[in-house]
Amino acid sequence: MRATNQQPSAAIVGTGVIGVGWIARFLAAGYDVTATDMAEGAEARMRRGVEQAWPYMQQRGLAEGASLDRLTFTDTVKEAVSKAELIQENVPEREDIKRKVLADIDEHARADAVIASSTSGITPSTLQQDCRHPERFLVAHPFHPVYLLPLVELVGGTSTLQQTIDKAEDIYKQAGMKPLVIEKEVEGHVADRLMEALWREALHIVNDGIATTEEVDAAIIYGAGLRWAQMGPFMTFHLAGGEQGMRHMLHQFGPALKLPWTKLEAPELTEELKEQVIEGSEKGAGPQTVAELEQQRNEFLVKLLDLVEEYWPEPQTIMNNRKKEPTHDG
Amino acid sequence: MRATNQQPSAAIVGTGVIGVGWIARFLAAGYDVTATDMAEGAEARMRRGVEQAWPYMQQRGLAEGASLDRLTFTDTVKEAVSKAELIQENVPEREDIKRKVLADIDEHARADAVIASSTSGITPSTLQQDCRHPERFLVAHPFHPVYLLPLVELVGGTSTLQQTIDKAEDIYKQAGMKPLVIEKEVEGHVADRLMEALWREALHIVNDGIATTEEVDAAIIYGAGLRWAQMGPFMTFHLAGGEQGMRHMLHQFGPALKLPWTKLEAPELTEELKEQVIEGSEKGAGPQTVAELEQQRNEFLVKLLDLVEEYWPEPQTIMNNRKKEPTHDG
Repeated sequence: MRATNQQPSAAIVGTGVIGVGWIARFLAAGYDVTATDMAEGAEARMRRGVEQAWPYMQQRGLAEGASLDRLTFTDTVKEAVSKAELIQENVPEREDIKRKVLADIDEHARADAVIASSTSGITPSTLQQDCRHPERFLVAHPFHPVYLLPLVELVGGTSTLQQTIDKAEDIYKQAGMKPLVIEKEVEGHVADRLMEALWREALHIVNDGIATTEEVDAAIIYGAGLRWAQMGPFMTFHLAGGEQGMRHMLHQFGPALKLPWTKLEAPELTEELKEQVIEGSEKGAGPQTVAELEQQRNEFLVKLLDLVEEYWPEPQTIMNNRKKEPTHDG
Repeated sequence: MRATNQQPSAAIVGTGVIGVGWIARFLAAGYDVTATDMAEGAEARMRRGVEQAWPYMQQRGLAEGASLDRLTFTDTVKEAVSKAELIQENVPEREDIKRKVLADIDEHARADAVIASSTSGITPSTLQQDCRHPERFLVAHPFHPVYLLPLVELVGGTSTLQQTIDKAEDIYKQAGMKPLVIEKEVEGHVADRLMEALWREALHIVNDGIATTEEVDAAIIYGAGLRWAQMGPFMTFHLAGGEQGMRHMLHQFGPALKLPWTKLEAPELTEELKEQVIEGSEKGAGPQTVAELEQQRNEFLVKLLDLVEEYWPEPQTIMNNRKKEPTHDG
């Protein structure tokens, strides 16, 4: 329980790239942050990383009282976690290491602390086994760069209390994030499964000699990537279906799921799955018509195109490397 | 051959959503555009569509002399295509229909015209079979909304001349697009295969009850989607690998390809594929260090976050629908 006049405090255990991202994010949100990492030279590397991230946090806007001076490094997990209301574990992605460190955190944490693991792949029920108080543990999986990308996936294990998820949701929201609560434990959670499917297909495309890595990247950034910053795959298809939205879309393009286009086998498009997808998309659209959503998307895309052109890859490295002399008037 | 004082001219055959997108794009690029479509009421629908797109074209910037008045609708393919230097076919995605229409276009087109099909799935060698002059035919596959998204995939068939690809590349570039030449004909080309892999995994996730359609969308837009507007999957992983880039990344995360995370089986990560991916990523990075690329990415993300927040889904429809009373001080 923290007194209302006290500053919020977070402990970051493991200060690699992900740990550094969490430190920058919580400092920017006005937290006292205590960090720890056993590796040789960890503190200096960590401080350099946080300093590099800081100008971007300043541009995004700092909470009142936020300061780099409120960062402390300590040598032991015990010292790092004892006062924190949120403890974020980011040690190497190995079950044995994580379970050992989490048991250590569990022993020294405040009774009312939330203990979160940044694991991208291991399920919370696996990780919380050695804790005496597993009810306050959950997975909170962020995305690189953690200090800028808002997504964090929250997943509870079999012993996690709903109250822990609720508290975590509040804390990450206060740190400017978009917590996504996932109801079912699966390896890779949700976002990494989606990314991994695209990544595997990308590797197949390179492996089969269809396109180079640069061409695959170009095929994403100049097309779907522009839409995905604002609209996910379901809403994108909802808009592609015209006034009838996803209902029309599934009718028209559902059969493409049978095509051997990708190496991934699609699920059977049962009536039940169809209804789930259609109702979900309509709910996602909210009270807005497809025409209104299209207008928003277009306004966004126009502004995004102006912005992104400055940051796209240098023309000499993509696209133009094939350029021959113009034969246009030939 | 066009005289230098003449306006460039394009013919659009089939004026559904994709055809309308092409019309708006070529009009904005200063072309005379002639459109045709056999469907009842096609002209009125087409004109409404182009008028809706036009304000966004104006915001993006019009070429000198670009005007909605330079759009003509005709009843026959013959009239539509006879003067055009580029003919873009966008009739329904059925091989028999497309082949018939393309043979008709081929009969009436100028000798030096480029004939392109917008097909998303059918290979050019299949489509060009009934043409007397298949050497001037290629697939030019755009992305919705065609008038805003710059990607267009160019694929030649077995009878396509390199000169045709080169001319098409010039034309689409002049229309503000990013043509991506794909060397190998495969169903779905490249971008749709990547999107389809993600889409199939998304359907599995919904089907398996792991997340709803809204949650899948959120898992994209608040995370990877923000990066993909500026950087594809290979360059993203190159940056995630620290100073050693993709080489370190494949060493560290290559084994994840063996995990049964997604329904898609990954290719074997052979030494040859590794080298292809590493060299490609290093080439894509160009002379810039990973640190420099990270700085660019961060600058972009900061600006993008400011922009995109205004356009993200309404909070009541995503994320907050689970929100309980705060239990933070409990």
